Amino acid sequence: MDTPDIGTQLSTFRQTIDNIDAALIHMLAERFRCTDQVGVLKAKYQLPAVDKDRERRQYERLTRLAQEANLDPSFVEKLMEFVISEVVQRHRQIAAIEQAASTDQAQATQYT
Amino acid sequence: MDTPDIGTQLSTFRQTIDNIDAALIHMLAERFRCTDQVGVLKAKYQLPAVDKDRERRQYERLTRLAQEANLDPSFVEKLMEFVISEVVQRHRQIAAIEQAASTDQAQATQYT
Repeated sequence: MDTPDIGTQLSTFRQTIDNIDAALIHMLAERFRCTDQVGVLKAKYQLPAVDKDRERRQYERLTRLAQEANLDPSFVEKLMEFVISEVVQRHRQIAAIEQAASTDQAQATQYT
Repeated sequence: MDTPDIGTQLSTFRQTIDNIDAALIHMLAERFRCTDQVGVLKAKYQLPAVDKDRERRQYERLTRLAQEANLDPSFVEKLMEFVISEVVQRHRQIAAIEQAASTDQAQATQYT
């Protein structure tokens, strides 16, 4: 079989890249759905925003997974820091919403 | 059925987050395997490192996918910029390796 021309080869790779990108976005969306629920729990029970032990275990595991998958661990670490900073920002928004809801509820109780 | 205690609820969410992170890392590893092959093609046929048209189409599609998945498109854009900057760096390394290999080959031919 002849080797496909360069345009066809590039196009084949790019279709795979596009499929993987769609999968990455949907995986991330599911990850945020899950971390948002953690945010609700933390806000509801006034748990600390950051759990240093959990973060350390996550980074250790991700470094190991990155090495096994032949990825630069420092790249994965920076990427996860970026994702986690978005999680923390969403947790703050969730906490503010929960706080406003409980204040409204307290005021409603006060004036009934 | 009773609601599980907070520790159990947190632990359940975290197991899902850890599974998703492993999937994300393996997806990214496969994405880089694919973009590395694009890098080899580009180096071999001296194609331009950046294809602005392709990048624009990618960002438009990713913005649409992000909106559909209820993710902040500017977050996805920044994340993809970060991934693509790693791709460009790997392409430069691949080009340097290809260049060195072809120089070696030219010298070997010269001295045989």
